This record gives sequence, C-alpha cells and structure tokens, in this order.
Amino acid sequence: MSKTLTLDDVETLAHRRLVRAGASSEAASSVARSTRRAERDGLRSHGLLYVPIYAEHLECGKVATDAVPAVTTPRPAAICVDAGNGFAHPAIDAGWAALTDASRTCGVAALSIKNSYNCGILGHHAERLAEDGLIGLCFTHAPASIAPTGGKRPVIGTNPLALAVPDGEGGARLVLDQSASAIAKSEILLRSREGRSIEPGWALDADGKPTTDADAALEGSMVPAGGQKGFGVGLMVEIFAAALTGANLSTEASPFSGPKGGPPGTGQFFLAVDPSAFAGDGFAASMDRLIASIEEQEGARLPGQRRMDNRRRIEAAGVIVDDDLLARIEGEDA
Amino acid sequence: MSKTLTLDDVETLAHRRLVRAGASSEAASSVARSTRRAERDGLRSHGLLYVPIYAEHLECGKVATDAVPAVTTPRPAAICVDAGNGFAHPAIDAGWAALTDASRTCGVAALSIKNSYNCGILGHHAERLAEDGLIGLCFTHAPASIAPTGGKRPVIGTNPLALAVPDGEGGARLVLDQSASAIAKSEILLRSREGRSIEPGWALDADGKPTTDADAALEGSMVPAGGQKGFGVGLMVEIFAAALTGANLSTEASPFSGPKGGPPGTGQFFLAVDPSAFAGDGFAASMDRLIASIEEQEGARLPGQRRMDNRRRIEAAGVIVDDDLLARIEGEDA
Repeated sequence: MSKTLTLDDVETLAHRRLVRAGASSEAASSVARSTRRAERDGLRSHGLLYVPIYAEHLECGKVATDAVPAVTTPRPAAICVDAGNGFAHPAIDAGWAALTDASRTCGVAALSIKNSYNCGILGHHAERLAEDGLIGLCFTHAPASIAPTGGKRPVIGTNPLALAVPDGEGGARLVLDQSASAIAKSEILLRSREGRSIEPGWALDADGKPTTDADAALEGSMVPAGGQKGFGVGLMVEIFAAALTGANLSTEASPFSGPKGGPPGTGQFFLAVDPSAFAGDGFAASMDRLIASIEEQEGARLPGQRRMDNRRRIEAAGVIVDDDLLARIEGEDA
Repeated sequence: MSKTLTLDDVETLAHRRLVRAGASSEAASSVARSTRRAERDGLRSHGLLYVPIYAEHLECGKVATDAVPAVTTPRPAAICVDAGNGFAHPAIDAGWAALTDASRTCGVAALSIKNSYNCGILGHHAERLAEDGLIGLCFTHAPASIAPTGGKRPVIGTNPLALAVPDGEGGARLVLDQSASAIAKSEILLRSREGRSIEPGWALDADGKPTTDADAALEGSMVPAGGQKGFGVGLMVEIFAAALTGANLSTEASPFSGPKGGPPGTGQFFLAVDPSAFAGDGFAASMDRLIASIEEQEGARLPGQRRMDNRRRIEAAGVIVDDDLLARIEGEDA
C-alpha cells in the first residue's frame, strides 16, 4: 500500500520527524527542504528514505541537536563555517549570503565547511548558486571507500563534484553532479542484501583484486570511474573538501549510516564564480553554443537531463510513498 | 646520432629558435622556460619536439609575433588577460603577480586568459602556483576531439585539469595533471603513422562506433576516461577554460598542429587558493596524513610520481637529443 504526497507534504513530514528527534526548527527546515528537492528530482535514496537515518543520527548523537553554525570571513573571498557537528544544511545556509555577496564583489569566492555531515544531493547546492546567477563548483567527501591505483585500502570516499551554470533567469542552464566511483555504493549494498553478484569493474576485494561478489566488495574497495584519472578527480575533491576545510579526512570519518562512531566530521567546499566578472555578457552566448553542440546530436544528452525529466513529472504528479516508510517516519505520530 | 644537452642548453636553443621565427625576446623567454620544464620532466612531446611547431606557428601567423598581453582586473579576485593571439605563456606571466597577490589578499582568486594558444604542460602552471605557496587548480582546453556520451561529433578537447598543492617550502607536495581522454591523442597519431591498430576503448569512428583502426579513430572521436563521468569532467573544464574566459569553444578552435585555420583562440582558467585563509596551519598536516595513507600502501603511487622520478634523473644526466631534431631546430644556424 502507498500514498501520493505533494512536495509540500514531503517537506512537512520530514520537518516534523526531525524536530521530534531533537533538531531545532531552523535546522529541520534546512534539511527538510533538501528532502523535498531530492524527492522532486526522483533521487529517492536522499529523499524520505533518508529521514529515519537523520532521525537516528540526531538521537544517537552523530548529529548534534544543539549545533549552532559559526561563520567567519578570514579574507574577503574566504567564508568558513564550523558546523559544530550539526547538519550540513544549516551550516551551508549560515554561510550562503556571505558567499554569494563575496563572489559578486570579488568575482570569485569560496565557502568551506568543517565538522559537518552528509550534505545530501550535492548538485542541489550547485544549482542554488546558479539560481543566484553564479557558477557553482561544489565538492564534498564521504567515508573512505576507494583505494588508490595499485593499492587496496580505501583512502577517499565516493567524493562527488557538482557544477551548475546559471541561465540568467533565476535557474540553472546545466547541472553536473557525479561521484568518483564507477557505481553508487548503494547499488552494491542492494546486491549484497539480495544475495546477487555485482558487475565486473565495480569493486575490488580486500586484497585489491577485482571481484563480482558483493560482500567481498564491501570488505574491499570501490573502483573509481576512469581508473587512475577517476581516482585523481576524487583526490582533488578530497583535498578541497577535507584537507583544505580542516574536516576529518575520508579515512577518519565515521560512517554515514548506522549509529556508531560519533559525528563524521566531514566537510564541503563550494566555489562561486560571477560569470559577468570574467566574460561580461559573453558567457551566456558561449554556453548556448556549447549546449547546442551537444543537444543537436541524436542520442546525446546533457548531463543532468534525467533529473530534469523527473522534476517535471513529479512536480505535476506528486510522490508515491510506501505506507511502511510513512509509518517508519511518522512513528507514534502516525 | 644524438647529443646530450643541459637544461640550460635546451632553454637557450628554444629561445634562439623562437626569436628567429619572430617572437619577442620576452615571449620567447616565457615559452623557452616551458620547453626546459617539459624536457626536465621527461615530457618530450612538449619539449624540444614542439619548438619547430611553435616556430611554424609564428611564421604562418597562427601565433601573432607582435602580441602584447592586456591585463585587466574587473573585480579584486578576477584577473583577465587577453593574449592577443600570441603565445599563452607570456599572457600567463603578465597576469601572474596580480593572481598571486589577489589570492593572498582575498583568499581565492582566478586568472582567465582568452585569445590564447596551447599552454604546454598544464601541471607546470599549477606547480608554479604551489611554489608560490598556493593551491593551483588549472583548466585549459583544446580543439574538439571527444564526443558527448551517446553522440558522435566531438564537442570538447582532451581538456586537461591540473592541481598542485604547496609543500610550504617553495615547492609542490603533489601535482595532478590529467586529460579527459582515455589515451593521449599523440598515441593514436603515432599508431596511425606506424600503420598499427589501437586498443579497444580508446576511440570511436565517425559513426560513434568503437574502433581499433587508428585512421578511423582520427576521423571520429576520442573516448573519455570513465565514460559519461569523464566527459563530465572535460565539460567542466570547457565551461571554465572556454565559455567563462570568452575564448573560442573547442569546436571553434583551429588545430594545435599544422599551419591552417589562423589563431586557435583557446583559453585557460587558473584558480589560486591560499590554504592559510581556510585552514590556517592545519592544511599541511591534513595533506601529510592524506599522502601517507597512499604512500604507505605497497604498489600504490601518488599521481605525478613518474614526472618527479624523471626530473631527478634528467637534472643530473641531461637531455639526449637526436641530431635530426637539433638540425630541425637550429636550421641555418646549425
């Protein structure tokens, strides 16, 4: 059995559950908005499915209920937020106005967040910069799951990067959002639960050898997309999101799932660039020609198109949610 | 037959040839330094081998002999250089002090270059930022050779990115330098000249189908490393290095080889970040732990290690250069 919810329902449901687990109303609002956006784009693993995990992490202390983000601006274009082991989203919100103001004033600016947590769908943060008329290049990291080329112990996480480009009308012209791994870790977890094998090229076992056994993969490491070059991109993300922010490294962060290990203490690094500072009005025209060169080819699609298709569909039709999940979120409220 | 040259000899030889082809002494100095660095690191395709191409491009007008880079600073952290269809290297030099000063003052700053040319080994520019105590993230693009996923016509070049991290002692702790393609285009050109087939996964033919025929590959497109995600990284580079700088797009740039098509008009975008603005002294300690987590694994190597090994060897032993190449460079001077 299932129900169809509006996106407003989704946001309200998430907010209520987070507050009940101890979050401040303000922090819960930041996170609930991200739950809404994930469901809107059909990214269900970071939608309502994640709300019970957020609640568990508030209740076990992995996310501090009393965190107050502390914003400093050590240089005119360097905005730093200590998330205080609370949620990432309110810490990002706390630094947002300073980041966008500084990037317009200086041409380019960056926001670094430490003592933070999983920031959900990275592309949504980049897209929000595009909505503010800026190019957003966003990095975040995660507990280590990818080994260096030739090695066998994970040193970086699936470390995504996201890039969004403004359309000049309050939206994004393009949103790129991709992790460093060949496949999402959630797919390997799913195959493990179902007792199914995984595809070649997805993972290595604990000895650094290729494996198609999902359990052996979970004991080993994920393969980066593009081999050594994919590892290089994930390492770049690690350097910005972890080393530069002063966060825990991916090898030092506690898991993003389960109640153990205390706060993960991960980080985010968001770069915002005002295109008018560099190219005047020419940037939009160049982007039009670049995007046309892709879209005019039969069979070629811009990155991020599936999310946009989902968005149009789900904004009209709503979100279908299993009664089981609703019961898990609403608990005694239900 | 061959001769062994010192790195000083290499630089002098390149400088003399470039001036003879019409470059100003100052522009020739910038380019000759890059030739020296390429040979020092064993990157021969961008060392003396490239000098006859530079000379040809000066002589045919693909590189303007009278270019004077024009530097503007539209915002405190946005430095823009119009290379005037001259070499990239003097244009980069012209904006360098403004970039490094602004990144220290503002915490982060960026240099954009348009109406430019092949900037040689991208990692050397990133490394130079690291030598100045800054994190350097550098993007440049190239005539289109990679098709979008699902398409068949190239829209982006091999579009490399380079990242260098300072060691706090006037050098780099780490230099990452990688193109978006699965294999260097020069390797496909070499196989074509030798009549050999190429490996599966390197290229597509003009219909967008996988091919192992080197000539069909040159009529078609290069495969990105990491499929759709590799294309995404190359597209990110295109957006910064071409669309944002106001350069020609990769689809619009003339080839980096041969005398035809006029100036390529490509671009570069270099981001410089002062780590002390974000992490104080903590960045170096985090980098130490991150690098140790890779180096302590048997079989794992940091990106860029082969160049460093070459550098130690070649600085001591010099550069072995074929007499044929020397004659091509020295021409009537020889």
